[in-house]
Amino acid sequence: MSVLEAKITELQEAAAKQGDVVRSLKAHAKDGKADKAEVEAAIAQLQEIKLDLDAKQKEFEKTTGKVSSQSKEAFRAALTNLLERRLFYIPSFKIYGSVAGFYDYGPPGCAIKQNLTQAWRQHFVLEENMLEVECPAVTPEVVLKASGHVDRFTDYMVTDLKTGDPYRADHLVEGHLEALLEDTKAPLPAAEKREVKDLLAGVGEMDGAALGALITRFGIKAPDTKNDLSPPFPFNLMFKTSIGPKGDMVGYLRPETAQGIFVNFRDLLYYNGSKLPFAAAQIGNSYRNEISPRAGLLRVREFTQAEIEHFVNPDDKSHPKFASVAKLEPLLYSRELQMGEEKRPKPVALGDAVARGTIANETLAYFIGRTWLLFGRLGVDLKRMRFRQHLQHEMAHYAEDCWDAEVETTYGWVECAGLADRSAYDLRAHTAMSKTELNAYEKFTEPREVEVTTVTPNKKELGLGFKRDAKAVADALEALGEEDAMCLKSDLDAGKPGKVVVDGKAVQVTAPMVEIKRQQKRLAGRNFIPSVIEPSFGIGRILYCVFEHSYYTREGDEARAVLRFTPLVAPVKATVFPLVQKEQLNALATKISASLTAAGLSNLIDTTGNTIGKRYARTDEIGVPFAVTVDFQALENASVTLRERDSTAQIRVPIADVATLIRRLVDSATTWEDAAAEYPAVAKAAAEEQQ
Amino acid sequence: MSVLEAKITELQEAAAKQGDVVRSLKAHAKDGKADKAEVEAAIAQLQEIKLDLDAKQKEFEKTTGKVSSQSKEAFRAALTNLLERRLFYIPSFKIYGSVAGFYDYGPPGCAIKQNLTQAWRQHFVLEENMLEVECPAVTPEVVLKASGHVDRFTDYMVTDLKTGDPYRADHLVEGHLEALLEDTKAPLPAAEKREVKDLLAGVGEMDGAALGALITRFGIKAPDTKNDLSPPFPFNLMFKTSIGPKGDMVGYLRPETAQGIFVNFRDLLYYNGSKLPFAAAQIGNSYRNEISPRAGLLRVREFTQAEIEHFVNPDDKSHPKFASVAKLEPLLYSRELQMGEEKRPKPVALGDAVARGTIANETLAYFIGRTWLLFGRLGVDLKRMRFRQHLQHEMAHYAEDCWDAEVETTYGWVECAGLADRSAYDLRAHTAMSKTELNAYEKFTEPREVEVTTVTPNKKELGLGFKRDAKAVADALEALGEEDAMCLKSDLDAGKPGKVVVDGKAVQVTAPMVEIKRQQKRLAGRNFIPSVIEPSFGIGRILYCVFEHSYYTREGDEARAVLRFTPLVAPVKATVFPLVQKEQLNALATKISASLTAAGLSNLIDTTGNTIGKRYARTDEIGVPFAVTVDFQALENASVTLRERDSTAQIRVPIADVATLIRRLVDSATTWEDAAAEYPAVAKAAAEEQQ
Repeated sequence: MSVLEAKITELQEAAAKQGDVVRSLKAHAKDGKADKAEVEAAIAQLQEIKLDLDAKQKEFEKTTGKVSSQSKEAFRAALTNLLERRLFYIPSFKIYGSVAGFYDYGPPGCAIKQNLTQAWRQHFVLEENMLEVECPAVTPEVVLKASGHVDRFTDYMVTDLKTGDPYRADHLVEGHLEALLEDTKAPLPAAEKREVKDLLAGVGEMDGAALGALITRFGIKAPDTKNDLSPPFPFNLMFKTSIGPKGDMVGYLRPETAQGIFVNFRDLLYYNGSKLPFAAAQIGNSYRNEISPRAGLLRVREFTQAEIEHFVNPDDKSHPKFASVAKLEPLLYSRELQMGEEKRPKPVALGDAVARGTIANETLAYFIGRTWLLFGRLGVDLKRMRFRQHLQHEMAHYAEDCWDAEVETTYGWVECAGLADRSAYDLRAHTAMSKTELNAYEKFTEPREVEVTTVTPNKKELGLGFKRDAKAVADALEALGEEDAMCLKSDLDAGKPGKVVVDGKAVQVTAPMVEIKRQQKRLAGRNFIPSVIEPSFGIGRILYCVFEHSYYTREGDEARAVLRFTPLVAPVKATVFPLVQKEQLNALATKISASLTAAGLSNLIDTTGNTIGKRYARTDEIGVPFAVTVDFQALENASVTLRERDSTAQIRVPIADVATLIRRLVDSATTWEDAAAEYPAVAKAAAEEQQ
Repeated sequence: MSVLEAKITELQEAAAKQGDVVRSLKAHAKDGKADKAEVEAAIAQLQEIKLDLDAKQKEFEKTTGKVSSQSKEAFRAALTNLLERRLFYIPSFKIYGSVAGFYDYGPPGCAIKQNLTQAWRQHFVLEENMLEVECPAVTPEVVLKASGHVDRFTDYMVTDLKTGDPYRADHLVEGHLEALLEDTKAPLPAAEKREVKDLLAGVGEMDGAALGALITRFGIKAPDTKNDLSPPFPFNLMFKTSIGPKGDMVGYLRPETAQGIFVNFRDLLYYNGSKLPFAAAQIGNSYRNEISPRAGLLRVREFTQAEIEHFVNPDDKSHPKFASVAKLEPLLYSRELQMGEEKRPKPVALGDAVARGTIANETLAYFIGRTWLLFGRLGVDLKRMRFRQHLQHEMAHYAEDCWDAEVETTYGWVECAGLADRSAYDLRAHTAMSKTELNAYEKFTEPREVEVTTVTPNKKELGLGFKRDAKAVADALEALGEEDAMCLKSDLDAGKPGKVVVDGKAVQVTAPMVEIKRQQKRLAGRNFIPSVIEPSFGIGRILYCVFEHSYYTREGDEARAVLRFTPLVAPVKATVFPLVQKEQLNALATKISASLTAAGLSNLIDTTGNTIGKRYARTDEIGVPFAVTVDFQALENASVTLRERDSTAQIRVPIADVATLIRRLVDSATTWEDAAAEYPAVAKAAAEEQQ
């Protein structure tokens, strides 16, 4: 780290600390415990630190010609400071010192999260007539045994051999390798650099032994104490509990919502008139007991998922509405592009991607297109969003194809959704464990002639040959697969004795003991286990990406932060300001606020005597898209001004139209441009936008 | 139980069993595994059982002149059969044999639950500008230690001394006492009957010893084995887990959502500009590891709560909007009425109830009124809803007043919401445990003169008198309460030595050692711990009551069940039926369905060739309020018929108006009566409503 970079970090810390001092003093000023001069002095000191920080950052960017990781961190620090200060989210249980990986959503966070979830529901569940379900989080062990989570839902952990402190092995190794690559004092030779880069790319897929080998090879120690580390061992990420008063029924908090859908497959299929394809969906909380959560909202122990399981005939994964997305061109980062020279995603029309076989099938591509459309509506910058295909070794053995929806943030590319063709794996697993057939029936358009092999044991002959083992041999013969049966037949037909395995031992059977025939059969249809295509979304992660892509500061005034939420997701749709503190204006503002509430539009009324500029600034910070100002003219001609947040443009609107107009803007039934064409513009006094 | 009653019960069981057979056969018929004749025979048999059951029930009602508990049970059996069959809700993890106390909501259940929750949010959070928060369910032990749940959130349990099977003690005792009262073979003498009735009324409040005494007195045994029972012991109802990888941090799944609000009080007060009163709200899942859950949705282990914590100055519990509810007359079942002769609730205007002191304050009464209005909008029959005041011994010692919103169902009166003035208890408990002051500051309108007592130890004199214990004595003097200080002063003023307790021992002090004065002081305001008024709702319970109050069968046709959901809560708002299977009609129906979806109206399109009557019957069962039928006339004049579910009346509406009209009906912006006045009525063919 250069001297300049060190100075920047130091100033960032100082600014954060001074910010806390100011807030605490302000709170006490209200209680009468701190005096005003003290507060003002603290604010002045904070501004000085910020000016210094700003200058140093500009200097750094000029000298290095790139956006520094410090300025990324400064961006993130400014954003998270705003988000926590305005209670979008805060660490949970703060008065008890908090617990890592748990966050509370405050009023604006709660509202935006609901709007986002509701938009997801309208976009997927309503539009596609999906079957939505809601299942409990507490899940008996057998369900998660079947799904594989009890045995395999693990991360590799290492512990400090002296203190016992736990760390996540892959994170430690990644951190160490990244530090090696960034070390400017002792730079790695080119060849070694290439090797470390390759290792780094593979860490996510390594098992315990491979991670252990790297820890030994690079001499990685416990970061806090520099003590030696234990070898990596698997740690199950599920929260465990016990159901009922006897204490003998193990339960877990579900690590994903998907399993609730799979165990209900039979009832859902019946509900759907026994017809395929259909999709079921669930929105709900899932739980992962992360070893050492970091990265704020991106890695938490309790989080909201929205998952879709689209059940489909494995022989026909076309989608009736595919044409509606075929021309969309999201950035695709295919396996091929990842392995190629450029290593950059490219915009590709989804129709072409399916035609060329880049995306495995129409249904998967349909959901990629729909996901892209949704993210755009939610306020994600689509130039900073890509669909990354899993490399072959990243995918589970049963998966046909898998794409992650990734969004670029200051943390790098963040996986916000995964879209996978999981074949019949999940239904097969629950069929095996529950002994309940999770099948669908397909009636052929025409009956089909098929050749089947029938094996008929001759019980009398077997009795003579095997005595009391005869039954076991007969069962083994009947259970023979197609291929084994034909193999046995060819031996017997050739006059040789054949072999069959009974209870792990091979026994010899002769021709009279069994009849094996090939027969033609007419079938009207067949039972099969459907394939499932699973789009799975992390609501908190999408929300965080929306925060990052929405944050900016007003040109020429870096202290004035704005969140440019779309009207659809904005937590508060409008504010209502009486221009000055007058009884009549307040009364009118209250009436307008009530009309907005009645139209289902969340709104805030601010009757403080603060300047309009100050009130705009406060509401810009929580991303309120529209502000209604009630001035004296309102009393004369029953009209108010309506300001749009990002353009700061204002129009004059009759009070009778206000609620309807904002409702239409929020529902995307009209645009601000159309509204500005319909109603007269208001020339704004420059002073209005000043704090 | 009479012979007739026994026969009714037997027939009910037979009908339920045969219903399962029919459903299973129908499912297999689709797979081609069961033949049609078999299905029809099963249906015929079911109808026979039902006819028999119906006759027996009518006979019973005629002979006894009252609605039998059997007909209550028959009502409930018919309703829950419908609800499970149409996937409103089903036992969770069915393919693994289910686990008591857990239910999944299927598509219509999920939709109605969301509509209900959303209505709650609009009615309370938006209308009152409440601060909504969302906190995790996983909660560290310290929070629930502070709240008292770790020590006291228990039910009394008894176990079968031979098998170890657990039972809830109060339920066993209640069951036994009820059976004694209902025993017609060996009826109790009048005096004993009165005593048993009194005991029964008190079981809910009994401690372990009292329950144990009754178990011994009445010789109550384990119901399944008739074995002896253990004495009752407390069982904590919280699900326990462990947070983080070290296994040393105990956590629980929250038993209520309220605590998340209390621990955030400081931040929420700051967010609200440090002003009182304000209310915070949370909707989320809570968890109670019930000993032996029964009664379907009414007692489950994972359930959705919606809780409000309204923080208020304890000296002023008026409510600015109280006038808006003062004239409402919900049925109030006050303490007085419960203790009186009639034992029946009465309609009382809330204004009068507060004026007479029946309800402790305006804010509590305001929420009672708002709750009553909401339940009405949700479809609860307000004649079967009452607010029951807690008797003095039911309330916690800190509670000022408490009312339960109860709804009458086949299970009796069900508590759906509790509205309590909890004084400062919760904030005080978290202040003590977290050492964080959870105060609000009140600025007096005018500075107040108050008289305070100051105690000033004389260190020199104390040093001479107490040597190295002088410091402890000085501390004890400074810590004296107002009253103790004045008591000491009067002794010293009278020339006597006074006493002060130091480390549990009384020591003597003399006049020169301490100066005690009364002084006038001017205070501009004061810090205080706010009182909290808590309306707390169980969403699943309200939902179940809405189901019961919505269920009826068409006059003259008991096989045709209808759920009369209000358009607001109905899971599906409209169906679209092409009159017959014709390409053109299907295409038009699909277009109309898409326009409904775009307006955010969930809808179903049914292009099966079934008769219109059959299609109406299927949608009546899930409570769809409006049906659009596309007939040949639609192709000529672009209009369709719209049918209202309960009146079965039809009007002719232009296709262009359909989505807007249904949207307005759902939003209560217009009524069916108004719509029927606006559009021409359609004379319906009687055949249409036939299946």
